Amino acid sequence: VTDIASVKNPRVVAVTRLHRRKHRRAERRTILEGPHVITEALESGIELLELYTLDPADDLANRAAGTDCPVFRVTPVVMQRLAPTEHPRGPIAVISVPAATPPRHHDAIVMVGVADPGNAGTIIRSAAAFDHDVIVWPGIDIWSPKVVRAGAGGHFRTRIIGGAPDPAALHTIGITTAALVVSDGLSIDAVGPGPVALFVGSEPHGLPDEVRAACDRAVTLPMSADHESLNAAVAASIAMWERFRSR
Amino acid sequence: VTDIASVKNPRVVAVTRLHRRKHRRAERRTILEGPHVITEALESGIELLELYTLDPADDLANRAAGTDCPVFRVTPVVMQRLAPTEHPRGPIAVISVPAATPPRHHDAIVMVGVADPGNAGTIIRSAAAFDHDVIVWPGIDIWSPKVVRAGAGGHFRTRIIGGAPDPAALHTIGITTAALVVSDGLSIDAVGPGPVALFVGSEPHGLPDEVRAACDRAVTLPMSADHESLNAAVAASIAMWERFRSR
Repeated sequence: VTDIASVKNPRVVAVTRLHRRKHRRAERRTILEGPHVITEALESGIELLELYTLDPADDLANRAAGTDCPVFRVTPVVMQRLAPTEHPRGPIAVISVPAATPPRHHDAIVMVGVADPGNAGTIIRSAAAFDHDVIVWPGIDIWSPKVVRAGAGGHFRTRIIGGAPDPAALHTIGITTAALVVSDGLSIDAVGPGPVALFVGSEPHGLPDEVRAACDRAVTLPMSADHESLNAAVAASIAMWERFRSR
Repeated sequence: VTDIASVKNPRVVAVTRLHRRKHRRAERRTILEGPHVITEALESGIELLELYTLDPADDLANRAAGTDCPVFRVTPVVMQRLAPTEHPRGPIAVISVPAATPPRHHDAIVMVGVADPGNAGTIIRSAAAFDHDVIVWPGIDIWSPKVVRAGAGGHFRTRIIGGAPDPAALHTIGITTAALVVSDGLSIDAVGPGPVALFVGSEPHGLPDEVRAACDRAVTLPMSADHESLNAAVAASIAMWERFRSR
Protein backbone atom coordinates (compact mmCIF):
# COMPACT_ATOMS: atom_id res chain seq x y z
CA VAL A 1 0.00 0.00 0.00
CA THR A 2 1.37 3.36 -1.09
CA ASP A 3 0.13 6.68 0.31
CA ILE A 4 -0.93 9.47 -2.01
CA ALA A 5 -1.66 12.86 -0.45
CA SER A 6 -1.25 15.19 -3.41
CA VAL A 7 -3.73 15.88 -6.18
CA LYS A 8 -0.72 16.54 -8.38
CA ASN A 9 0.50 12.96 -8.09
CA PRO A 10 0.86 11.67 -11.68
CA ARG A 11 -1.39 8.67 -10.98
CA VAL A 12 -4.12 10.96 -9.69
CA VAL A 13 -3.80 13.13 -12.77
CA ALA A 14 -4.01 10.04 -14.99
CA VAL A 15 -7.17 8.76 -13.26
CA THR A 16 -8.81 12.17 -13.43
CA ARG A 17 -8.28 12.19 -17.21
CA LEU A 18 -10.64 9.19 -17.34
CA HIS A 19 -13.51 11.45 -16.31
CA ARG A 20 -13.49 12.56 -19.94
CA ARG A 21 -14.89 10.42 -22.66
CA LYS A 22 -12.14 11.04 -25.17
CA HIS A 23 -9.52 9.76 -22.75
CA ARG A 24 -11.59 6.72 -21.75
CA ARG A 25 -11.91 5.91 -25.43
CA ALA A 26 -8.24 6.51 -26.26
CA GLU A 27 -6.97 4.48 -23.30
CA ARG A 28 -9.80 1.93 -23.30
CA ARG A 29 -10.00 2.27 -19.54
CA THR A 30 -12.68 3.46 -17.17
CA ILE A 31 -13.31 4.15 -13.50
CA LEU A 32 -15.49 2.19 -11.10
CA GLU A 33 -16.67 3.87 -7.92
CA GLY A 34 -17.92 2.32 -4.72
CA PRO A 35 -17.61 -1.08 -3.09
CA HIS A 36 -20.74 -2.58 -4.68
CA VAL A 37 -19.84 -2.18 -8.33
CA ILE A 38 -16.14 -2.94 -7.77
CA THR A 39 -17.10 -6.17 -6.02
CA GLU A 40 -19.38 -7.08 -8.94
CA ALA A 41 -16.49 -6.51 -11.33
CA LEU A 42 -14.20 -8.75 -9.27
CA GLU A 43 -16.87 -11.49 -9.05
CA SER A 44 -17.21 -11.48 -12.80
CA GLY A 45 -13.46 -11.99 -13.23
CA ILE A 46 -12.52 -8.44 -14.17
CA GLU A 47 -8.97 -7.52 -13.21
CA LEU A 48 -8.53 -4.27 -11.31
CA LEU A 49 -5.59 -2.25 -12.61
CA GLU A 50 -5.40 0.15 -9.65
CA LEU A 51 -7.41 0.67 -6.46
CA TYR A 52 -7.61 3.96 -4.52
CA THR A 53 -9.12 3.80 -1.06
CA LEU A 54 -9.44 5.88 2.08
CA ASP A 55 -9.06 2.75 4.19
CA PRO A 56 -6.60 0.08 3.02
CA ALA A 57 -7.78 -2.19 5.86
CA ASP A 58 -11.27 -2.68 4.41
CA ASP A 59 -12.37 -5.97 2.84
CA LEU A 60 -12.23 -4.82 -0.73
CA ALA A 61 -8.75 -3.34 -0.41
CA ASN A 62 -7.57 -6.57 1.18
CA ARG A 63 -9.11 -8.56 -1.63
CA ALA A 64 -7.50 -6.36 -4.28
CA ALA A 65 -4.16 -6.55 -2.51
CA GLY A 66 -4.43 -10.34 -2.75
CA THR A 67 -4.31 -10.01 -6.54
CA ASP A 68 -1.65 -8.13 -8.49
CA CYS A 69 -3.58 -4.88 -8.15
CA PRO A 70 -1.66 -1.99 -6.61
CA VAL A 71 -3.59 -0.40 -3.73
CA PHE A 72 -3.18 3.26 -2.84
CA ARG A 73 -4.31 4.93 0.35
CA VAL A 74 -5.47 8.45 -0.50
CA THR A 75 -6.58 11.45 1.52
CA PRO A 76 -10.20 12.68 1.33
CA VAL A 77 -9.04 15.60 -0.82
CA VAL A 78 -7.40 13.24 -3.30
CA MET A 79 -10.50 10.99 -3.29
CA GLN A 80 -12.61 14.01 -4.11
CA ARG A 81 -10.43 14.65 -7.14
CA LEU A 82 -10.36 11.02 -8.28
CA ALA A 83 -14.09 10.41 -8.07
CA PRO A 84 -16.59 11.56 -10.66
CA THR A 85 -19.22 12.18 -7.94
CA GLU A 86 -19.47 15.04 -5.50
CA HIS A 87 -19.24 13.36 -2.11
CA PRO A 88 -17.22 10.21 -2.75
CA ARG A 89 -16.56 7.64 -0.08
CA GLY A 90 -14.53 5.50 -2.45
CA PRO A 91 -12.93 3.23 -3.30
CA ILE A 92 -12.11 4.00 -6.91
CA ALA A 93 -10.86 1.27 -9.26
CA VAL A 94 -9.41 1.58 -12.74
CA ILE A 95 -10.23 -1.22 -15.19
CA SER A 96 -9.72 -1.92 -18.87
CA VAL A 97 -13.05 -1.58 -20.69
CA PRO A 98 -14.17 -5.18 -21.22
CA ALA A 99 -14.19 -6.29 -24.85
CA ALA A 100 -17.64 -6.54 -26.43
CA THR A 101 -18.69 -9.94 -27.71
CA PRO A 102 -20.39 -10.90 -31.00
CA PRO A 103 -24.18 -11.34 -31.18
CA ARG A 104 -25.72 -14.71 -30.39
CA HIS A 105 -29.10 -16.42 -30.73
CA HIS A 106 -30.64 -14.93 -27.57
CA ASP A 107 -33.06 -12.17 -26.51
CA ALA A 108 -31.40 -8.76 -26.59
CA ILE A 109 -32.12 -5.09 -26.05
CA VAL A 110 -30.61 -2.74 -28.61
CA MET A 111 -29.94 0.80 -27.42
CA VAL A 112 -30.14 3.22 -30.33
CA GLY A 113 -29.20 6.72 -29.24
CA VAL A 114 -30.29 6.42 -25.59
CA ALA A 115 -28.56 9.63 -24.52
CA ASP A 116 -29.42 9.92 -20.84
CA PRO A 117 -26.77 8.05 -18.82
CA GLY A 118 -29.23 7.19 -16.07
CA ASN A 119 -31.57 5.59 -18.60
CA ALA A 120 -28.74 3.73 -20.33
CA GLY A 121 -27.51 2.30 -17.03
CA THR A 122 -31.01 1.41 -15.89
CA ILE A 123 -31.60 -0.51 -19.13
CA ILE A 124 -28.39 -2.49 -18.59
CA ARG A 125 -29.46 -3.27 -15.01
CA SER A 126 -32.86 -4.51 -16.22
CA ALA A 127 -31.25 -6.51 -19.05
CA ALA A 128 -29.21 -8.39 -16.44
CA ALA A 129 -32.31 -8.97 -14.31
CA PHE A 130 -34.35 -10.26 -17.26
CA ASP A 131 -31.61 -12.19 -19.06
CA HIS A 132 -31.22 -10.06 -22.17
CA ASP A 133 -28.00 -9.36 -24.01
CA VAL A 134 -27.23 -5.66 -24.50
CA ILE A 135 -26.43 -4.43 -27.99
CA VAL A 136 -24.98 -0.96 -28.06
CA TRP A 137 -25.31 1.38 -31.00
CA PRO A 138 -22.21 3.50 -31.77
CA GLY A 139 -22.06 6.75 -29.85
CA ILE A 140 -23.44 5.41 -26.57
CA ASP A 141 -20.73 5.55 -23.97
CA ILE A 142 -21.94 2.74 -21.73
CA TRP A 143 -18.71 2.64 -19.74
CA SER A 144 -18.99 6.23 -18.53
CA PRO A 145 -19.00 6.45 -14.72
CA LYS A 146 -22.62 7.71 -14.72
CA VAL A 147 -23.87 4.81 -16.82
CA VAL A 148 -21.90 2.29 -14.77
CA ARG A 149 -23.35 3.75 -11.56
CA ALA A 150 -26.93 3.51 -12.83
CA GLY A 151 -26.16 -0.02 -14.04
CA ALA A 152 -25.62 -1.15 -10.44
CA GLY A 153 -23.32 -3.95 -11.53
CA GLY A 154 -25.46 -5.04 -14.49
CA HIS A 155 -22.53 -4.32 -16.82
CA PHE A 156 -20.77 -7.30 -15.26
CA ARG A 157 -23.75 -9.65 -15.17
CA THR A 158 -24.97 -9.37 -18.74
CA ARG A 159 -23.42 -9.86 -22.16
CA ILE A 160 -22.46 -6.62 -23.87
CA ILE A 161 -22.43 -7.00 -27.63
CA GLY A 162 -20.45 -4.68 -29.86
CA GLY A 163 -20.03 -4.10 -33.52
CA ALA A 164 -23.53 -2.55 -33.64
CA PRO A 165 -25.31 -5.29 -35.56
CA ASP A 166 -28.11 -3.70 -37.55
CA PRO A 167 -31.56 -5.27 -37.90
CA ALA A 168 -30.59 -7.06 -41.14
CA ALA A 169 -27.52 -8.64 -39.52
CA LEU A 170 -29.55 -9.85 -36.54
CA HIS A 171 -32.27 -11.18 -38.81
CA THR A 172 -29.62 -13.23 -40.62
CA ILE A 173 -28.73 -15.11 -37.44
CA GLY A 174 -32.38 -15.95 -36.75
CA ILE A 175 -33.30 -13.15 -34.35
CA THR A 176 -36.61 -11.35 -34.81
CA THR A 177 -36.04 -7.59 -34.67
CA ALA A 178 -38.73 -5.47 -33.01
CA ALA A 179 -38.84 -1.67 -32.79
CA LEU A 180 -40.36 -0.34 -29.56
CA VAL A 181 -42.61 2.53 -30.66
CA VAL A 182 -45.17 4.73 -28.87
CA SER A 183 -48.13 3.87 -31.07
CA ASP A 184 -49.48 1.56 -33.77
CA GLY A 185 -47.27 -1.41 -32.89
CA LEU A 186 -48.20 -5.01 -32.09
CA SER A 187 -48.54 -6.39 -28.59
CA ILE A 188 -45.21 -7.64 -27.25
CA ASP A 189 -46.85 -11.08 -26.85
CA ALA A 190 -47.28 -11.27 -30.61
CA VAL A 191 -43.55 -11.20 -31.34
CA GLY A 192 -41.58 -14.40 -31.64
CA PRO A 193 -41.25 -17.41 -31.45
CA GLY A 194 -37.51 -17.50 -30.99
CA PRO A 195 -35.16 -14.79 -29.75
CA VAL A 196 -36.13 -11.16 -30.16
CA ALA A 197 -33.93 -8.06 -30.35
CA LEU A 198 -35.89 -5.06 -29.02
CA PHE A 199 -34.76 -1.73 -30.45
CA VAL A 200 -35.25 1.24 -28.11
CA GLY A 201 -34.58 4.86 -29.04
CA SER A 202 -33.88 8.07 -27.21
CA GLU A 203 -36.29 10.44 -25.52
CA PRO A 204 -38.06 12.40 -26.85
CA HIS A 205 -37.20 11.47 -30.43
CA GLY A 206 -37.60 7.70 -30.39
CA LEU A 207 -36.06 5.49 -33.06
CA PRO A 208 -34.81 6.91 -36.34
CA ASP A 209 -37.27 6.13 -39.15
CA GLU A 210 -34.77 4.00 -41.04
CA VAL A 211 -34.15 1.78 -37.99
CA ARG A 212 -37.87 1.34 -37.41
CA ALA A 213 -38.39 0.51 -41.07
CA ALA A 214 -35.59 -2.07 -41.04
CA CYS A 215 -37.05 -4.00 -38.10
CA ASP A 216 -39.25 -7.07 -38.68
CA ARG A 217 -41.94 -5.84 -36.27
CA ALA A 218 -43.04 -2.77 -34.33
CA VAL A 219 -44.19 -3.21 -30.73
CA THR A 220 -46.23 -0.81 -28.59
CA LEU A 221 -47.01 -1.03 -24.89
CA PRO A 222 -50.67 -0.12 -24.32
CA MET A 223 -51.32 2.72 -21.89
CA SER A 224 -54.36 4.32 -20.27
CA ALA A 225 -54.66 7.08 -22.88
CA ASP A 226 -53.10 8.11 -26.18
CA HIS A 227 -51.21 11.10 -24.83
CA GLU A 228 -49.50 9.10 -22.07
CA SER A 229 -45.84 8.15 -22.35
CA LEU A 230 -43.17 6.21 -20.50
CA ASN A 231 -39.60 6.90 -19.59
CA ALA A 232 -37.37 5.12 -22.17
CA ALA A 233 -35.73 2.88 -19.56
CA VAL A 234 -39.13 1.93 -18.12
CA ALA A 235 -40.52 1.06 -21.55
CA ALA A 236 -37.45 -1.03 -22.41
CA SER A 237 -37.59 -2.76 -19.02
CA ILE A 238 -41.28 -3.66 -19.33
CA ALA A 239 -40.68 -5.09 -22.79
CA MET A 240 -37.80 -7.22 -21.45
CA TRP A 241 -39.92 -8.28 -18.47
CA GLU A 242 -42.66 -9.48 -20.81
CA ARG A 243 -40.19 -11.49 -22.89
CA PHE A 244 -38.58 -12.95 -19.77
CA ARG A 245 -41.95 -13.90 -18.24
CA SER A 246 -43.15 -15.59 -21.41
CA ARG A 247 -40.20 -17.98 -21.68
CA VAL B 1 -46.20 41.94 -21.74
CA THR B 2 -43.63 43.56 -19.49
CA ASP B 3 -39.90 43.38 -20.15
CA ILE B 4 -37.50 42.24 -17.46
CA ALA B 5 -33.79 42.64 -18.13
CA SER B 6 -32.33 42.60 -14.62
CA VAL B 7 -31.68 39.63 -12.40
CA LYS B 8 -32.30 41.98 -9.48
CA ASN B 9 -35.91 42.53 -10.48
CA PRO B 10 -38.01 41.63 -7.41
CA ARG B 11 -40.11 39.16 -9.40
CA VAL B 12 -36.99 37.36 -10.56
CA VAL B 13 -35.70 37.20 -7.02
CA ALA B 14 -39.06 35.82 -5.86
CA VAL B 15 -39.09 33.08 -8.52
CA THR B 16 -35.50 32.12 -7.79
CA ARG B 17 -36.44 31.54 -4.16
CA LEU B 18 -38.72 28.73 -5.38
CA HIS B 19 -35.63 26.74 -6.36
CA ARG B 20 -35.39 25.97 -2.65
CA ARG B 21 -37.67 23.50 -1.02
CA LYS B 22 -38.34 25.50 2.11
CA HIS B 23 -39.64 28.40 0.07
CA ARG B 24 -41.78 26.17 -2.14
CA ARG B 25 -43.27 24.69 0.98
CA ALA B 26 -43.82 28.02 2.74
CA GLU B 27 -45.40 29.67 -0.30
CA ARG B 28 -47.11 26.52 -1.63
CA ARG B 29 -45.90 27.45 -5.09
CA THR B 30 -43.56 25.80 -7.57
CA ILE B 31 -41.95 26.36 -10.96
CA LEU B 32 -42.72 24.62 -14.22
CA GLU B 33 -40.14 24.71 -16.99
CA GLY B 34 -40.57 24.14 -20.69
CA PRO B 35 -43.50 24.26 -23.10
CA HIS B 36 -44.46 20.59 -22.73
CA VAL B 37 -45.14 20.49 -19.00
CA ILE B 38 -46.66 23.99 -18.91
CA THR B 39 -49.07 22.98 -21.67
CA GLU B 40 -50.00 19.85 -19.70
CA ALA B 41 -50.72 22.00 -16.66
CA LEU B 42 -52.96 24.32 -18.69
CA GLU B 43 -54.80 21.37 -20.25
CA SER B 44 -55.56 19.99 -16.81
CA GLY B 45 -57.06 23.31 -15.73
CA ILE B 46 -54.17 24.61 -13.64
CA GLU B 47 -53.97 28.39 -13.50
CA LEU B 48 -50.59 29.92 -14.28
CA LEU B 49 -49.72 32.71 -11.84
CA GLU B 50 -46.85 34.16 -13.89
CA LEU B 51 -45.16 33.25 -17.18
CA TYR B 52 -41.59 34.21 -18.12
CA THR B 53 -40.59 33.75 -21.73
CA LEU B 54 -37.85 34.71 -24.17
CA ASP B 55 -40.44 35.10 -26.93
CA PRO B 56 -43.83 36.59 -26.02
CA ALA B 57 -45.05 35.88 -29.57
CA ASP B 58 -44.97 32.09 -29.14
CA ASP B 59 -48.13 29.99 -28.83
CA LEU B 60 -47.87 29.31 -25.14
CA ALA B 61 -47.27 32.95 -24.24
CA ASN B 62 -50.27 33.92 -26.36
CA ARG B 63 -52.37 31.31 -24.64
CA ALA B 64 -51.29 32.50 -21.18
CA ALA B 65 -51.91 36.11 -22.14
CA GLY B 66 -55.47 35.09 -23.02
CA THR B 67 -56.03 34.19 -19.36
CA ASP B 68 -55.37 36.51 -16.42
CA CYS B 69 -51.72 35.38 -16.27
CA PRO B 70 -49.15 38.15 -16.48
CA VAL B 71 -46.52 37.44 -19.16
CA PHE B 72 -42.97 38.75 -18.90
CA ARG B 73 -40.41 38.91 -21.66
CA VAL B 74 -37.00 38.19 -20.15
CA THR B 75 -33.45 38.29 -21.45
CA PRO B 76 -31.42 35.05 -21.75
CA VAL B 77 -29.42 36.07 -18.67
CA VAL B 78 -32.61 36.46 -16.64
CA MET B 79 -33.96 33.15 -17.96
CA GLN B 80 -30.75 31.49 -16.84
CA ARG B 81 -31.37 32.80 -13.34
CA LEU B 82 -35.05 31.89 -13.25
CA ALA B 83 -34.66 28.32 -14.44
CA PRO B 84 -33.53 25.44 -12.28
CA THR B 85 -31.68 23.83 -15.23
CA GLU B 86 -28.39 24.80 -16.78
CA HIS B 87 -29.28 25.67 -20.35
CA PRO B 88 -32.89 26.82 -20.20
CA ARG B 89 -34.88 27.75 -23.25
CA GLY B 90 -37.94 28.56 -21.18
CA PRO B 91 -40.67 29.42 -20.66
CA ILE B 92 -40.94 29.32 -16.88
CA ALA B 93 -44.33 29.34 -15.17
CA VAL B 94 -45.17 29.78 -11.51
CA ILE B 95 -48.15 27.81 -10.18
CA SER B 96 -49.74 27.12 -6.82
CA VAL B 97 -48.99 23.55 -5.77
CA PRO B 98 -52.22 21.67 -6.53
CA ALA B 99 -54.06 20.43 -3.47
CA ALA B 100 -53.79 16.71 -2.83
CA THR B 101 -57.03 14.72 -2.82
CA PRO B 102 -58.22 12.03 -0.39
CA PRO B 103 -57.71 8.32 -1.19
CA ARG B 104 -60.34 6.47 -3.20
CA HIS B 105 -61.18 2.86 -4.10
CA HIS B 106 -58.70 2.58 -6.99
CA ASP B 107 -55.26 1.10 -7.75
CA ALA B 108 -52.47 3.27 -6.36
CA ILE B 109 -48.72 3.42 -5.99
CA VAL B 110 -47.44 4.56 -2.61
CA MET B 111 -44.01 6.18 -2.59
CA VAL B 112 -42.32 5.62 0.76
CA GLY B 113 -39.01 7.46 0.91
CA VAL B 114 -38.22 7.40 -2.81
CA ALA B 115 -35.40 9.90 -2.54
CA ASP B 116 -34.10 10.17 -6.08
CA PRO B 117 -36.07 12.90 -7.89
CA GLY B 118 -35.67 11.19 -11.26
CA ASN B 119 -37.15 7.98 -9.85
CA ALA B 120 -40.00 9.82 -8.12
CA GLY B 121 -40.92 11.64 -11.34
CA THR B 122 -40.63 8.49 -13.42
CA ILE B 123 -43.01 6.67 -11.05
CA ILE B 124 -45.55 9.49 -11.40
CA ARG B 125 -45.23 9.33 -15.21
CA SER B 126 -45.82 5.57 -15.18
CA ALA B 127 -48.74 5.93 -12.74
CA ALA B 128 -50.45 8.23 -15.24
CA ALA B 129 -49.73 5.80 -18.09
CA PHE B 130 -51.08 2.81 -16.13
CA ASP B 131 -53.98 4.55 -14.39
CA HIS B 132 -52.76 4.44 -10.81
CA ASP B 133 -53.31 7.10 -8.17
CA VAL B 134 -50.14 8.36 -6.51
CA ILE B 135 -49.94 8.38 -2.74
CA VAL B 136 -47.05 10.35 -1.39
CA TRP B 137 -45.41 9.66 1.93
CA PRO B 138 -44.35 12.73 3.94
CA GLY B 139 -40.90 14.00 3.08
CA ILE B 140 -41.09 13.37 -0.66
CA ASP B 141 -41.08 16.69 -2.44
CA ILE B 142 -42.93 15.66 -5.59
CA TRP B 143 -43.40 19.24 -6.76
CA SER B 144 -39.67 19.97 -6.95
CA PRO B 145 -38.62 21.06 -10.45
CA LYS B 146 -36.53 17.89 -10.91
CA VAL B 147 -39.40 15.58 -10.03
CA VAL B 148 -41.83 17.54 -12.21
CA ARG B 149 -39.38 17.35 -15.12
CA ALA B 150 -38.99 13.57 -14.80
CA GLY B 151 -42.78 13.31 -14.47
CA ALA B 152 -43.17 14.62 -18.04
CA GLY B 153 -46.64 15.99 -17.27
CA GLY B 154 -47.79 12.94 -15.31
CA HIS B 155 -48.35 15.18 -12.27
CA PHE B 156 -51.26 16.72 -14.16
CA ARG B 157 -52.69 13.51 -15.57
CA THR B 158 -52.92 11.41 -12.42
CA ARG B 159 -54.52 11.82 -9.03
CA ILE B 160 -52.09 12.84 -6.30
CA ILE B 161 -53.27 11.76 -2.89
CA GLY B 162 -52.08 13.44 0.27
CA GLY B 163 -52.44 12.92 3.96
CA ALA B 164 -50.16 9.87 3.73
CA PRO B 165 -52.72 7.15 4.33
CA ASP B 166 -50.97 4.25 6.01
CA PRO B 167 -51.65 0.60 5.15
CA ALA B 168 -54.29 0.29 7.89
CA ALA B 169 -56.20 3.35 6.63
CA LEU B 170 -56.17 2.04 3.05
CA HIS B 171 -57.24 -1.40 4.20
CA THR B 172 -60.25 0.22 5.91
CA ILE B 173 -61.54 1.59 2.60
CA GLY B 174 -61.26 -1.80 0.93
CA ILE B 175 -57.87 -1.49 -0.74
CA THR B 176 -55.43 -4.41 -0.54
CA THR B 177 -52.01 -3.15 0.50
CA ALA B 178 -48.97 -4.82 -1.06
CA ALA B 179 -45.32 -4.17 -0.22
CA LEU B 180 -42.97 -4.44 -3.22
CA VAL B 181 -39.96 -6.37 -1.89
CA VAL B 182 -36.85 -7.85 -3.52
CA SER B 183 -37.40 -11.43 -2.37
CA ASP B 184 -39.84 -13.87 -0.79
CA GLY B 185 -43.00 -12.09 -1.95
CA LEU B 186 -45.97 -13.40 -3.90
CA SER B 187 -46.42 -13.00 -7.62
CA ILE B 188 -48.13 -9.72 -8.48
CA ASP B 189 -50.86 -11.80 -10.19
CA ALA B 190 -51.78 -13.29 -6.83
CA VAL B 191 -52.80 -9.95 -5.29
CA GLY B 192 -56.38 -8.76 -5.44
CA PRO B 193 -59.22 -8.95 -6.39
CA GLY B 194 -60.16 -5.31 -6.02
CA PRO B 195 -57.93 -2.27 -5.90
CA VAL B 196 -54.34 -2.62 -4.73
CA ALA B 197 -52.01 -0.04 -3.21
CA LEU B 198 -48.41 -0.96 -4.04
CA PHE B 199 -45.87 0.32 -1.52
CA VAL B 200 -42.43 1.04 -2.99
CA GLY B 201 -39.38 2.11 -0.98
CA SER B 202 -36.12 3.86 -1.64
CA GLU B 203 -32.92 2.48 -3.11
CA PRO B 204 -30.93 0.81 -1.71
CA HIS B 205 -32.81 0.45 1.57
CA GLY B 206 -36.26 -0.60 0.39
CA LEU B 207 -39.30 -0.30 2.63
CA PRO B 208 -39.00 0.22 6.37
CA ASP B 209 -39.75 -3.04 8.23
CA GLU B 210 -42.81 -1.60 9.94
CA VAL B 211 -44.38 -0.58 6.63
CA ARG B 212 -43.75 -3.99 5.13
CA ALA B 213 -45.21 -5.65 8.22
CA ALA B 214 -48.32 -3.47 8.09
CA CYS B 215 -49.14 -4.40 4.47
CA ASP B 216 -51.60 -7.21 3.68
CA ARG B 217 -49.24 -8.83 1.18
CA ALA B 218 -45.66 -8.76 -0.03
CA VAL B 219 -44.98 -8.91 -3.77
CA THR B 220 -41.74 -9.80 -5.56
CA LEU B 221 -40.93 -9.55 -9.26
CA PRO B 222 -39.04 -12.67 -10.35
CA MET B 223 -35.65 -12.10 -11.98
CA SER B 224 -33.04 -14.20 -13.71
CA ALA B 225 -30.93 -14.73 -10.57
CA ASP B 226 -31.09 -13.99 -6.86
CA HIS B 227 -28.45 -11.28 -6.87
CA GLU B 228 -30.15 -9.26 -9.62
CA SER B 229 -32.01 -6.06 -8.82
CA LEU B 230 -34.09 -3.38 -10.49
CA ASN B 231 -34.15 0.37 -10.34
CA ALA B 232 -36.94 1.42 -7.93
CA ALA B 233 -38.86 3.29 -10.63
CA VAL B 234 -38.59 0.32 -12.99
CA ALA B 235 -39.84 -2.12 -10.33
CA ALA B 236 -42.77 0.16 -9.43
CA SER B 237 -43.61 0.64 -13.12
CA ILE B 238 -43.60 -3.08 -13.89
CA ALA B 239 -45.88 -3.75 -10.92
CA MET B 240 -48.30 -1.05 -12.14
CA TRP B 241 -48.09 -2.39 -15.69
CA GLU B 242 -49.08 -5.87 -14.44
CA ARG B 243 -52.05 -4.48 -12.51
CA PHE B 244 -53.13 -2.37 -15.48
CA ARG B 245 -52.84 -5.27 -17.93
CA SER B 246 -54.82 -7.63 -15.70
CA ARG B 247 -57.87 -5.36 -15.46
